[in-house]
Amino acid sequence: MKKLINDPADVVSQALLGMAAAHPELRVDHENKIVYRGDAPVSGKVGLISGGGSGHEPLHAGFVGPGMLDAACAGEIFTSPVPDQMVEATKRVDGGAGVLHIVKNYTGDVMNFEMAAEMAAAETGVEVASVVTNDDVAVQDSLYTAGRRGVGVTVLLEKIAGAAAEQGRSLTEVADVARRVNEGGRSMGMALTSCTVPAAGQPTFELPETEIEIGIGIHGEPGRRRVPHVPARQVAEYLLEPILADTDFSGGDGVIAFVNGMGGTPLLELYLMFHEVAGILEKAGVRVARSLVGPYITSLDMAGCSVTLLKADEDLLRLWDAPVRTPALRWGV
Amino acid sequence: MKKLINDPADVVSQALLGMAAAHPELRVDHENKIVYRGDAPVSGKVGLISGGGSGHEPLHAGFVGPGMLDAACAGEIFTSPVPDQMVEATKRVDGGAGVLHIVKNYTGDVMNFEMAAEMAAAETGVEVASVVTNDDVAVQDSLYTAGRRGVGVTVLLEKIAGAAAEQGRSLTEVADVARRVNEGGRSMGMALTSCTVPAAGQPTFELPETEIEIGIGIHGEPGRRRVPHVPARQVAEYLLEPILADTDFSGGDGVIAFVNGMGGTPLLELYLMFHEVAGILEKAGVRVARSLVGPYITSLDMAGCSVTLLKADEDLLRLWDAPVRTPALRWGV
Repeated sequence: MKKLINDPADVVSQALLGMAAAHPELRVDHENKIVYRGDAPVSGKVGLISGGGSGHEPLHAGFVGPGMLDAACAGEIFTSPVPDQMVEATKRVDGGAGVLHIVKNYTGDVMNFEMAAEMAAAETGVEVASVVTNDDVAVQDSLYTAGRRGVGVTVLLEKIAGAAAEQGRSLTEVADVARRVNEGGRSMGMALTSCTVPAAGQPTFELPETEIEIGIGIHGEPGRRRVPHVPARQVAEYLLEPILADTDFSGGDGVIAFVNGMGGTPLLELYLMFHEVAGILEKAGVRVARSLVGPYITSLDMAGCSVTLLKADEDLLRLWDAPVRTPALRWGV
Repeated sequence: MKKLINDPADVVSQALLGMAAAHPELRVDHENKIVYRGDAPVSGKVGLISGGGSGHEPLHAGFVGPGMLDAACAGEIFTSPVPDQMVEATKRVDGGAGVLHIVKNYTGDVMNFEMAAEMAAAETGVEVASVVTNDDVAVQDSLYTAGRRGVGVTVLLEKIAGAAAEQGRSLTEVADVARRVNEGGRSMGMALTSCTVPAAGQPTFELPETEIEIGIGIHGEPGRRRVPHVPARQVAEYLLEPILADTDFSGGDGVIAFVNGMGGTPLLELYLMFHEVAGILEKAGVRVARSLVGPYITSLDMAGCSVTLLKADEDLLRLWDAPVRTPALRWGV
């Protein structure tokens, strides 16, 4: 295993030191492994927090800032943060309008965020709402999940719900927007190679040189099937077929189309994939209203990609276009 | 070789189709493999073009847009674009104030941009100035270079010179800013693994599981030396020692510190590296005025990183902070 690290046990804490050094506009609580926007809490604004295992950067800490998250709790690699972190973050971002927890559907995260919501409410009376993302059409139930896994739509949701909160919408309204994004979004991923967790020191799974895995999870959880390594055009079909079979994305205001890199795949290949995805969508009568191409929800050094489609309407598109200022997504400011 | 491509011969042209689909605000000339900002030429503004072999994305096409480049010419992977592309781009971005060519110091690029400047001037009388970046302290002369190679500083230069052009400065002034950036910037890179060029189908070089290469070039050209795989802290010292020995970065307005990913290295490791870099700079009395962390000048799927320091002054910092709107760098708009 060759990685740019010092000690497998310190990867997350040392990366957070780097984030603090590179982004003085954020505040990092190193003891609790929480990244805050510099001006949190924002009085009268719904606070948004998310979090999860590390190893998916820039998700979630890279999405902290005006127009997106107020705080992100970092767990160890591929390990849920603990309720204490979430309680601390909830209290610190509460500006009097309540706090929304954005939770990817993995058993540990769901359980810990639920406990944190109860603890925070009991301790301080802060009103907490939760939304769980479960957009991955690959599998029902999985290694760490009951039901569908939460993946790419989480990125789009944090941006869109963040904009709704910034506009001054209420906790109920922001939570509604978030649920609408989750309901209208579907994803599917694939891997060319396994990732290697630093503490494990070897690849999570073996994938022969001639095969790829379709429907992979972002922690290397098994997907739908292994198939021979095929051209990108065919990969795009493998990913989009189940997405388009699951939900009707045609008509209306089109979709936000998101081609995500898993961490070890160069941007050149992601743009090539986007071309294939756009071609399939055009044939299927699905209009691309906005797009996002790049590594935004990754799986350490895994080579591969995922595709997310989100049904757009005017409100969601306006929220998507609204100003955002975070390390990984920034425009309008 | 497992990659998300269809045919090694079509990777660049198909990725450009993806760029066009994902970024409707840009215009892509697919025949000439040139990416333009949508409103080029901008009347009265100095036009900025760059280009080079593909495989370093987002450099250069990802830096096309208001506040940065007017056009980027894409060569095949690790192969210079031809003079005809550069001539075409030069003519099309000329808004009457002349055109600056930004050229990384590789023999093919330098030769072809020189020829293109002469041809464009002869054909249309457009005034062309050129700046060649050569910031890599790793080696004098190299596989494709006489003198030092042009690497990370190119990213910073395109941003800063782009802002100077946007402000309405003259060709001489913009070229001056660009040369000032190149003279004040130094870089050094390293690899954990080789990249694999699609047409070659196998890694460019072999690097044992226990070794890393210090001073690597962005095409996998040999560096200074191979050393045992050491912790990130030591890697940061290997990279910064020759940079700090070459130029005095202490005092003044500090530096723009840039930790760049080579394409296959996750952001988590890049932030960890930034922490190590910041620590060394602090000890050396070098103040970090601004920072950039991420994969901006890559080498396909190579795992590794590079560090670039740029001496800052008030003018350069203001130009760095100025609004930019490109696929890969965007703020203020």
